[in-house]
Amino acid sequence: MLHYVCTACGKRTPATTHAPVCECGGLFELDFTPPAWDAARIDRSEWSQFRYRDFMALEGDTWRSVTLGEGMTPIVRFDDDVLFKMDYTMPTLSFKDRGAATLVAHAKSIGVERCVQDSSGNAGNSVAAYCARAGIACEIYVPEGTSPKKITMIESHGAKVHVVPGSRDHCADVCRARVKEEGVYYMNHVYNPFFYEGMKAYVYETFEQLGRIPANIVVPVGNGTLFIGVIKALEHLQASGAIDAFPNVIALQSELCDPLLRAREAGEHVPARVSPQPTMAEGIAIGVPMRGRELLDMIYRHNVKVVSAPEEKILEARHAIARRGIYCEHTTAANYAAYLHYCELYGRTPDTLITMCGAGIKSDH
Amino acid sequence: MLHYVCTACGKRTPATTHAPVCECGGLFELDFTPPAWDAARIDRSEWSQFRYRDFMALEGDTWRSVTLGEGMTPIVRFDDDVLFKMDYTMPTLSFKDRGAATLVAHAKSIGVERCVQDSSGNAGNSVAAYCARAGIACEIYVPEGTSPKKITMIESHGAKVHVVPGSRDHCADVCRARVKEEGVYYMNHVYNPFFYEGMKAYVYETFEQLGRIPANIVVPVGNGTLFIGVIKALEHLQASGAIDAFPNVIALQSELCDPLLRAREAGEHVPARVSPQPTMAEGIAIGVPMRGRELLDMIYRHNVKVVSAPEEKILEARHAIARRGIYCEHTTAANYAAYLHYCELYGRTPDTLITMCGAGIKSDH
Ligand SMILES: Cc1ncc(COP(=O)(O)O)c(C=O)c1O
Ligand SMILES: Cc1ncc(COP(=O)(O)O)c(C=O)c1O
Ligand SMILES: [Zn+2]
Ligand SMILES: [Zn+2]
Repeated sequence: MLHYVCTACGKRTPATTHAPVCECGGLFELDFTPPAWDAARIDRSEWSQFRYRDFMALEGDTWRSVTLGEGMTPIVRFDDDVLFKMDYTMPTLSFKDRGAATLVAHAKSIGVERCVQDSSGNAGNSVAAYCARAGIACEIYVPEGTSPKKITMIESHGAKVHVVPGSRDHCADVCRARVKEEGVYYMNHVYNPFFYEGMKAYVYETFEQLGRIPANIVVPVGNGTLFIGVIKALEHLQASGAIDAFPNVIALQSELCDPLLRAREAGEHVPARVSPQPTMAEGIAIGVPMRGRELLDMIYRHNVKVVSAPEEKILEARHAIARRGIYCEHTTAANYAAYLHYCELYGRTPDTLITMCGAGIKSDH
Repeated sequence: MLHYVCTACGKRTPATTHAPVCECGGLFELDFTPPAWDAARIDRSEWSQFRYRDFMALEGDTWRSVTLGEGMTPIVRFDDDVLFKMDYTMPTLSFKDRGAATLVAHAKSIGVERCVQDSSGNAGNSVAAYCARAGIACEIYVPEGTSPKKITMIESHGAKVHVVPGSRDHCADVCRARVKEEGVYYMNHVYNPFFYEGMKAYVYETFEQLGRIPANIVVPVGNGTLFIGVIKALEHLQASGAIDAFPNVIALQSELCDPLLRAREAGEHVPARVSPQPTMAEGIAIGVPMRGRELLDMIYRHNVKVVSAPEEKILEARHAIARRGIYCEHTTAANYAAYLHYCELYGRTPDTLITMCGAGIKSDH
């Protein structure tokens, strides 16, 4: 049976719990070591990320009734130096489907019947869709100002939307208060470790597709759900002897909201206190990443570069990408803008994989 | 060397021509018989529809610099009877990317440098994106009333947009007049036979994914680009002995624009004259399908059922699908509405494959 371990006090809790955090309030992580990587364990008859399920913490076959075929996204050559992984070619048009699929499959397998989540963006859209698929009643808290288009999409899946006056942070507080008072399941991409199990497939797929891991991997970091998945999967590949060197991972933040970048520059192990300014890269504008300590541990452990996406280069980057056939979200264009900034700082950086993780139409007005 | 054959006069023309039609004005088809289907010819190292390129009329390797990883879309179980092929999980969020990829690859290989196309919908979006990818200058003619959102997407790819006052048909006339006067290449999904080469992959993928062809295949038909691709690929599989029985193909039209349905009911070999009424299924609202004769020949040859999507059931169908996690275009919901209508007429129809060919956000306002 799978167990959680508390990142604060170390206490073990069966993963069948419906509680969002440890009794002490600490966030959970999974006590799970995947079997050694072995390409023979890929289920090639499965055309979704669940072809790698032997390496994911998943019990039973619930995923079969939950998957919408997420994953197996192509890798496209952008130019001599850059490869794009087209991770928005997913059921809800963003990479969050990877994590939502594993999280909701887990929740279903432990008998969750209703849940709440706070997110105005891709994660909320994903969770609403997969809950609909799984038959789990779902309520999504969004901050005021969320575009009607996004609310329409979430509601289309039968989820109830609560528009909360005030900031994004306040909206999360309201949702978490509800979790605390009513004990309703918190279907959250940051809190719940099963979300990261799906994100790992980003790396497994890349490895299967290219037969190697590119020298550089650019990953956006707000709360760092993809980042954590990427690091975990790379550590797994390395521990299995499947790759020799750890690639150069480049984490990016908005220059207007960069608590991890500042912490890293100062050599701190907790996120810096920042006053986030409005940015076009709203998907990564997280002032207080919940797993900040964990992220910084990973950053130091692997000498991850943290680089900012210059605000005034985001539109230009989006334009440059669209002019070569790919229309991505503003937040996703920031990935490429940050890469170009990295090249300015460190020189030409060939053999780089960048994620195209949100479809452009999602961030248009 | 590949040749076109004229569907009207039978004259052969090298496929390197930049002309849109035969000298006589007849539409071209390709004189191409793929080698017998053999699973060993699938290039499993290629994560796009071009893994089936041995069965496509493609010369050279131009496709490598044009592909955006289109295809390899998952098949998802919707209920006991229905499978959805998630064909909107594509670079431009619709199935048209299949055809645009092969068409633009061909155009590039014969040295096309600029082109025009008329389409306010998914085909125009696709062609603009792949032309951007291929470095081909592109102008798209759209009828007045086209939503600004669609124009933004097309323009993002560097394509020039001409908004033409009047009807969709008039818009096509204006574009074709330009083709005629200036000899500019007509990058059109209906005229150009290379478009259909990509659409065939819909069936090849299904066959590889399921190891069989479902008993029933539901396909929307406006101009019938997917329909023609599906029939060609099925004929190929059958001629190769890979499948015994031809599946029951169910073609659907909007009940407010149904020239093929009416022709079939009357036993005619040319599309009926209809006065199209506005429909939510605007993607299939084609009053005069250019390849109407060809479509009807295929319909009679394989005893294809033609069924209508009841207008007042489209929103309900879209709703039912979204309530299970999949948010599709209105036109795509018509596919499911037509299937339900078919079941009313002919009884329960298990083992049915339906295409989810356009992402829901594309048809929202
Ligand atoms: C398009 C896009 N990119 C990046 C991110 C950042 O993901 P995370 O907060 O998990 O680091 C998000 C989060 O919603 C997003 O929607
Ligand atoms: C979503 C959608 N479905 C169906 C169709 C019909 O395709 P065709 O006209 O090739 O039959 C279209 C065409 O644009 C479309 O966009
Ligand atoms: Zn604890
Ligand atoms: Zn002719």
